[in-house]
Amino acid sequence: MTDSTLSPELEAVVAAAAAAAPAFAATAPKDRAHALVVVADALEAAKPELVEIAMRETGLTEARLNGEVTRTAVQLRLFAETIVAGAHLDARIDYADPAFVLGPRPDVRRTHIPLGPVINFSASNFPFAFSVLGGDSAAILAAGCPLIVKAHSGHPELSDATAAVATTALREAGMPEGVFHLIHGREAGVQVLKDERIKAGSFTGSIGVGRLLTDIAASRPAPIPFFGELGSVNPVFITADAIAERADEIAGGYLTSVSGSAGQLCTKPGFVFVPQGADLEAAIARSETPLPEHRLLDPRIAQSYNERRDAILGAEGVRAIVEGGVRFDEQGHGWATPTVVAVSLDAFRASHDALVHEAFGPLSILVETPEGTDLAALMPEFYEGNLTGTLHISAAEASGETENAAELRALVTALSKQVGRVLFNGWSTGVAVTPAQQHGGPWPATSNDSSTSVGTAAISRFLRPVAFQNAPAAFLPEALRDDNPLGVPQAISPAGESQSWGASAR
Amino acid sequence: MTDSTLSPELEAVVAAAAAAAPAFAATAPKDRAHALVVVADALEAAKPELVEIAMRETGLTEARLNGEVTRTAVQLRLFAETIVAGAHLDARIDYADPAFVLGPRPDVRRTHIPLGPVINFSASNFPFAFSVLGGDSAAILAAGCPLIVKAHSGHPELSDATAAVATTALREAGMPEGVFHLIHGREAGVQVLKDERIKAGSFTGSIGVGRLLTDIAASRPAPIPFFGELGSVNPVFITADAIAERADEIAGGYLTSVSGSAGQLCTKPGFVFVPQGADLEAAIARSETPLPEHRLLDPRIAQSYNERRDAILGAEGVRAIVEGGVRFDEQGHGWATPTVVAVSLDAFRASHDALVHEAFGPLSILVETPEGTDLAALMPEFYEGNLTGTLHISAAEASGETENAAELRALVTALSKQVGRVLFNGWSTGVAVTPAQQHGGPWPATSNDSSTSVGTAAISRFLRPVAFQNAPAAFLPEALRDDNPLGVPQAISPAGESQSWGASAR
Repeated sequence: MTDSTLSPELEAVVAAAAAAAPAFAATAPKDRAHALVVVADALEAAKPELVEIAMRETGLTEARLNGEVTRTAVQLRLFAETIVAGAHLDARIDYADPAFVLGPRPDVRRTHIPLGPVINFSASNFPFAFSVLGGDSAAILAAGCPLIVKAHSGHPELSDATAAVATTALREAGMPEGVFHLIHGREAGVQVLKDERIKAGSFTGSIGVGRLLTDIAASRPAPIPFFGELGSVNPVFITADAIAERADEIAGGYLTSVSGSAGQLCTKPGFVFVPQGADLEAAIARSETPLPEHRLLDPRIAQSYNERRDAILGAEGVRAIVEGGVRFDEQGHGWATPTVVAVSLDAFRASHDALVHEAFGPLSILVETPEGTDLAALMPEFYEGNLTGTLHISAAEASGETENAAELRALVTALSKQVGRVLFNGWSTGVAVTPAQQHGGPWPATSNDSSTSVGTAAISRFLRPVAFQNAPAAFLPEALRDDNPLGVPQAISPAGESQSWGASAR
Repeated sequence: MTDSTLSPELEAVVAAAAAAAPAFAATAPKDRAHALVVVADALEAAKPELVEIAMRETGLTEARLNGEVTRTAVQLRLFAETIVAGAHLDARIDYADPAFVLGPRPDVRRTHIPLGPVINFSASNFPFAFSVLGGDSAAILAAGCPLIVKAHSGHPELSDATAAVATTALREAGMPEGVFHLIHGREAGVQVLKDERIKAGSFTGSIGVGRLLTDIAASRPAPIPFFGELGSVNPVFITADAIAERADEIAGGYLTSVSGSAGQLCTKPGFVFVPQGADLEAAIARSETPLPEHRLLDPRIAQSYNERRDAILGAEGVRAIVEGGVRFDEQGHGWATPTVVAVSLDAFRASHDALVHEAFGPLSILVETPEGTDLAALMPEFYEGNLTGTLHISAAEASGETENAAELRALVTALSKQVGRVLFNGWSTGVAVTPAQQHGGPWPATSNDSSTSVGTAAISRFLRPVAFQNAPAAFLPEALRDDNPLGVPQAISPAGESQSWGASAR
């Protein structure tokens, strides 16, 4: 039935993924969980070789990459725990109810099933945690969906080496052949995304590419969900009281957050609002936080960062607090030291379009707000959607009983409206991989803000609900059976309960 | 900031909805629930007048419309219960964990907040249950999102009258001004859907219009989720044993399901597969199920149904079992009696494109399959996505231990893959409004199969997750506070629990 325009090589990949889908969907959660743990173990066993390749290909430090491998392995194990626990299935059972307020109700039971083959586009800036075996991949495999990873062009060799680890481990763990594939090349990725056998896509990258892929997914003859994690400038608001209380601590945390991984993190604090006249600028200038030179991921990113930095420094009213810079080596690699600039709110507004877009690299902008500025009202001047928004407040303000409490609450509400995660007295880089995490936000932070790409809730992106009506036990999915062989949480609606809330409807 | 191209009238509507959003989002769940109950009571109080208008505008029967008002009121009350119970908030609390396997974990808490103003396009075929105060509207208001309803052109007067009931009741219940609006005209709906202040859309209608609106929502500068419930042919499979066991009962149920509401239901069984030589055809022909003439919703639908019926009857190999027909009156209204036709599998395949598309009206096609047909393999010959798929099996087959059990299981799996609800020994029309209901399926059954338009899970379409990191209690949403003033379910991850699953990650 497929009118495929894929190359023979890609056709083989997509056909194998599609062929593997039913068997993979049918694997028991505990077997899939076991496979994820085997993959995690294999990844950690290969850490020395993989990190060596990653250092060469990405310029990230050994310490960072070692930590990233651990995080990636832990992510896989966390998803293994998650699918055995089974809350993600959201199993619901409505018992048949002859006395239901709208007439006899049949037995209806609802669970979630895997979507089918998914393509995941790797990120440049997380060669492990958002690449071949990263968070999206872990969620896709945990959901029971065959996975096709499109390697990032910035670390092709690492991608191949990681894929080899994954393929061997999945086979050893007894998973069906064809559940995992790696492909290279953007055009190949686009072709696969367009194929009718592919049922969802995930992506971490720029707004421009993300928009392109989102549009492709949406305009297919049968549109599919596309989960793009795109751009974010992550506004931070610091009160005068917080600065008075701990200017040096805040300045140190800020510089560490901006400079880590050379600022190439989607959660880097891009804008920091401080009251005019507060002492943060001086605290930043005098900070002894180490700001070592760090290679940028690849020459293209370095070039683009350098241009953005020049444009920002050249904008009217922008002053450098920490000058920093970019040095290019003979291979064309850029080596950056962090840049922090300050600008008044008026000047920021005058140069809004030059300043507001994400600078992917170690640069951040301090915006000085005059007394009486309505901070909550500032939010719409930014990207409509951001991954994070942060408040630094004083111990007294944390009580919610200071004079400015209503103003702070309004700011929290404004942040909630435009971001996926609201932080207090911390920095947005470093995203905990936990059940309550939310890494996502309104467009353009993500292409679909009903979900997250970090944390266990990420798995639900690759599942969809199915209900069974009056199904004999022999034909029910295990999660919906009365004897509950998987031991998953089941939300049960007993017969008769509609009598109270339906009473006045008679 | 808005570069609006709306007419002054629409601009006023959208501006009022946007202005109402923060106050509406901030209402307590119990107050919003109270408002929904007040609206439900007002709707039922107005039932006689409203049903009278509806009968005239839609041609549906008084009994059906009275029942639909009750269902609509119950829906509103069910959503009221749902938001007070609070499970839809999916509140998650990860306590700070200094011993977390990836390094100290902050306190992270996650809940769901309303998206903002939503436009809901009403359905032609449910003047109450999927129109001004129908299921989508109830879910949108329950979520705390201001609602703009686009009236269906088939029942404008009823829409106005229902809107008046809603406006008064919401005001009486103390809801903010501007949370509810009614607009008329498709172009007006499109303009509103394009407005940047609108954060989601819902729709019940044809694949053609649904595709148009889905594409508009997806191609906005900031894309928004669009929940369209579009077309479905709802395949049914009946085993030889089931027919041998109860041919007359099945025939009667089938005819009732096809003819109810003149077949103008998205869950009408459009295709029924029966083994060649089984006795169902004769049972249908001899059935005494009453098949009264019924007015079709409007002249356009009647015309279109009549043409589809002619085309189907004219296709090679199609035989009428129940002839039925359409009679046009002087106002151009079509009055239909049900038509059931039979065709061999070979003939169905030969005329696939003429037969496979939904016939919106009281027509259904029996397809006779030769012995040995792989029924599971037939599913891809249909719409990729359907709302429902049904099996009729015998009591013996229900045990899952007959010779054909593996074949039946394969068919259930194939149905699960392509539908939102799998039914056994029942008919797909009549959708219970309950927590476990799933009314949705892969494209083109819906534009977004991660959700449902019937049942309490429908509310999640209009919410998105937000996390709070290290937030002081004074700034946390109530659902996330340790003292849990709303009494909602909270999924808690205590400190220390990562030690087991993370152990091998060190």
